[in-house]
Amino acid sequence: MIPTITAFEQSPDNGLGLARDMPVRWALEEVGQSYDVKLVSFAELKAPDHLALHPFGQIPTYQEDGLTLFESGAIVLHVAQSRAGLLPENAHARSRAIMWMFSALNTIEPVVWDYDIAPLLEGDKPWHAERMIMLEGRLRTRLASLSGRLGADDWLDGAFSAGDLMMVSVLRRLQGSGLLEEFPNLAAYMQRGEARPAFKRAFDAQWAVFSARSS
Amino acid sequence: MIPTITAFEQSPDNGLGLARDMPVRWALEEVGQSYDVKLVSFAELKAPDHLALHPFGQIPTYQEDGLTLFESGAIVLHVAQSRAGLLPENAHARSRAIMWMFSALNTIEPVVWDYDIAPLLEGDKPWHAERMIMLEGRLRTRLASLSGRLGADDWLDGAFSAGDLMMVSVLRRLQGSGLLEEFPNLAAYMQRGEARPAFKRAFDAQWAVFSARSS
Repeated sequence: MIPTITAFEQSPDNGLGLARDMPVRWALEEVGQSYDVKLVSFAELKAPDHLALHPFGQIPTYQEDGLTLFESGAIVLHVAQSRAGLLPENAHARSRAIMWMFSALNTIEPVVWDYDIAPLLEGDKPWHAERMIMLEGRLRTRLASLSGRLGADDWLDGAFSAGDLMMVSVLRRLQGSGLLEEFPNLAAYMQRGEARPAFKRAFDAQWAVFSARSS
Repeated sequence: MIPTITAFEQSPDNGLGLARDMPVRWALEEVGQSYDVKLVSFAELKAPDHLALHPFGQIPTYQEDGLTLFESGAIVLHVAQSRAGLLPENAHARSRAIMWMFSALNTIEPVVWDYDIAPLLEGDKPWHAERMIMLEGRLRTRLASLSGRLGADDWLDGAFSAGDLMMVSVLRRLQGSGLLEEFPNLAAYMQRGEARPAFKRAFDAQWAVFSARSS
């Protein structure tokens, strides 16, 4: 039985692949697992059927053999722990790869998200510019630390792992901000992730959803 | 060899046990693993020795048998996956318990954190009150969803797990805000977590650090 995930019927990102189904699609492609997609409208997200799968009324969800998961990080980790290809065999290296998943989602993403979403939430407020300076400073501090740790390496800890998949997914939200370019090794790291064949297949699949709706 | 964790020499939380060493201490107590603690000053957090362990210059870190981890979520998961007591045996239930860890850290904590930290970061700004209304609304929406899913159950998915440990740890940051009391089942859930003997041992251990410094 192949897993079924949910994704936005009409993603607000205009086909950029920034919604949270993207890391899940990417992980499934990396391990060579085919999957079905159920598209969900914004109205359906808050309907009882979907809330039974995802109490916060969001995407993605993951269903397989009687297991239902939500949270993109948890789904990627489940895929990585149940199939070969996204986590090292060595136990210590495996724990460190998982550490980078948490780091992406709990240390980097919150500051990326606040920075990215502020123009939408409060762009019309007279204090928006003042807030953006604070948010940008906070984000730049974290990116500088991440850049320092990555150094000249290709990936965060040896071979490409679920940790890199999650970190690249989070950094992609900064595309177009100019901030990533202040840290050339992080910009190159993100591009290295996006150049992976599995990433491209995942990107194309979500793009197909977008272009079918807009044509 | 028993693991060594790092914690603040002087926690900014005045002994409330809100710093991120607390869920790690709690997890170690739940599985019956003794541990050493290295206290770190604020100056030492940003020194090369500590940055080699934790690139973002924070606590906690975890060292054991040549493995170094940072990120409280990753450390708790490592402890839970390498010892019995914090994850169910059944594979599906295990994936769901880990899902709740990600949910605590990636869906609940960011909105809790923004709400909690705003008075410190921008309490002196003329637009602070306006922002707090937005932050409180966003947080209340998430808490309502969580409360709906918990319902009348004791824990989020069957027996107490690392998912509950992480969720209770995140909710504790709302103590005193009055917000948790709007959702009596969440307030009771948090208290149920705090009543666990392992929680109390962890709390007392961090309290001892605080009281030794303040006496």
